[in-house]
Amino acid sequence: MAQQNHQTAPTQFVDAAGIRFAYRRFGKSGGVPLVFNMHFTGTMDHWDPAVTDGFAKDREVVLFNNAGISSSSGEVPTTVERMGANAIAFIKALGLKTVDVLGFSIGGFVAQEIALQAPELVRRLVLVGTGPRGGQGMATLTPEAQQIFGATYADPDDVWLSVHFAPSEASQAAGRQFLRRFRLRNENRDPEVNEKVAPAQIEAIGKWGVPREKPFEYLKSIRQAALVVNGGKDVIIYPVNSFILQQHLPNAQLILYPDSNHGSQYQYPALFVADVTRFLDAKVPFPIPKETDHA
Amino acid sequence: MAQQNHQTAPTQFVDAAGIRFAYRRFGKSGGVPLVFNMHFTGTMDHWDPAVTDGFAKDREVVLFNNAGISSSSGEVPTTVERMGANAIAFIKALGLKTVDVLGFSIGGFVAQEIALQAPELVRRLVLVGTGPRGGQGMATLTPEAQQIFGATYADPDDVWLSVHFAPSEASQAAGRQFLRRFRLRNENRDPEVNEKVAPAQIEAIGKWGVPREKPFEYLKSIRQAALVVNGGKDVIIYPVNSFILQQHLPNAQLILYPDSNHGSQYQYPALFVADVTRFLDAKVPFPIPKETDHA
Repeated sequence: MAQQNHQTAPTQFVDAAGIRFAYRRFGKSGGVPLVFNMHFTGTMDHWDPAVTDGFAKDREVVLFNNAGISSSSGEVPTTVERMGANAIAFIKALGLKTVDVLGFSIGGFVAQEIALQAPELVRRLVLVGTGPRGGQGMATLTPEAQQIFGATYADPDDVWLSVHFAPSEASQAAGRQFLRRFRLRNENRDPEVNEKVAPAQIEAIGKWGVPREKPFEYLKSIRQAALVVNGGKDVIIYPVNSFILQQHLPNAQLILYPDSNHGSQYQYPALFVADVTRFLDAKVPFPIPKETDHA
Repeated sequence: MAQQNHQTAPTQFVDAAGIRFAYRRFGKSGGVPLVFNMHFTGTMDHWDPAVTDGFAKDREVVLFNNAGISSSSGEVPTTVERMGANAIAFIKALGLKTVDVLGFSIGGFVAQEIALQAPELVRRLVLVGTGPRGGQGMATLTPEAQQIFGATYADPDDVWLSVHFAPSEASQAAGRQFLRRFRLRNENRDPEVNEKVAPAQIEAIGKWGVPREKPFEYLKSIRQAALVVNGGKDVIIYPVNSFILQQHLPNAQLILYPDSNHGSQYQYPALFVADVTRFLDAKVPFPIPKETDHA
């Protein structure tokens, strides 16, 4: 069988925690798989093939719909903690013992929960366009997000031009390329999410984002090497929240890209895949030289 | 003549703006040279050969002492603006038409001034452990910096363990390696700076750092692609100032490294040189894909 890719990988199913999880798995097997956790109201089809196929050259990529999303059964939980527990059940049901975890937006909250609840399962973390519990402007959708998600669009896909891309001409042009790429899979696409998904996810986001005492203490418990990435002009989850993640995670690097919004990884997919690949492939992510390294 | 390196490059002199500038120039010629601007009270000998020789493999490296520093003549100006003007005079005196500019700490303030005053001279900017005019905690030395620079040390070099490295065992071990590396040049070293340097630089830092209305507006004028790098635990110039630089420069990427202080580039020299080299060598620093890039 020819190697599958983003366009061709069949949707498969696995049962765990009373849920039938839909997933796709492709790329170069034999190493540590990279498990992708999706954003608000997104399905497996909302990933950018320039990103997923970019990673799939060097590693196995696992996309999935968490409980209640699109082709997966069950209900969307109203807590991120429960979403994380479901994600762990899914990963273990695949028989995987060690994975790298990438999470985007609410998927980045879920990624943190996976690392907190099952630290032995996670080798490295990639947190994209996301933030900590109790971060800035995170208890509700930001005013910009409310405006963007509340508006109507000539083509429903166009909402993502405002969510993921900055107002500049260059960023919007990149956005239109992204929309073409994410429609490249034209068979066996996921159904869009049903009307119960957004309210449940918003409730979970609200509980995760609500201000609290010492909100960032919990990040000390995430010992994995982490790479935090965002667009410098993210209006959905403000980039200061990526800064906060880097400041409080014990072993994290931050990258902010210029002139980019929530979906900076879709604006600069080659740069993003290269930056993350170096982080994931490095024997030691942040190497300190030894005496013998410089004569 | 064998190619020179950090240890062997002779100190040369060039006259401009009434100053006799001491400099060293080595590495692979033919491309855009990278001009280094040094930190508070530092000389050419305070650069890490793991960094300078790391860059010299691929490009020409220019180290110099600005006016009044060590082997350069003249007085240290009490404004960063004047330091920038002197640096421009030095670069032009070498006959260079286009350079990349790297600045560390106060050298990063000078790098910004070079870009503001002579934008045609600067191709790309690398701003390390630095901040904007009117940044947070920048009007005076930070409390931590005052404590560190005010203390006495068994070996005077040990001050740099506290300035450039974090308290962790790993960072301090990296610091001791750095101190060995920066003593590797054991002939024709620069004299240490005289007692007039620190007060003049502190006065200039004070004027640069003082809070003001709309402090970051000026950054919009710096149109060059910029890479902003810092240690996530910088106590000399707080890392929030690197975040501010990224947020206000029109075309800047931010990298913050984990568990590192003011001298993160000396803690992770291989990582730093690789990250900066990719940025400097990229035809387009932040490439957006075209339709033809993904079938």
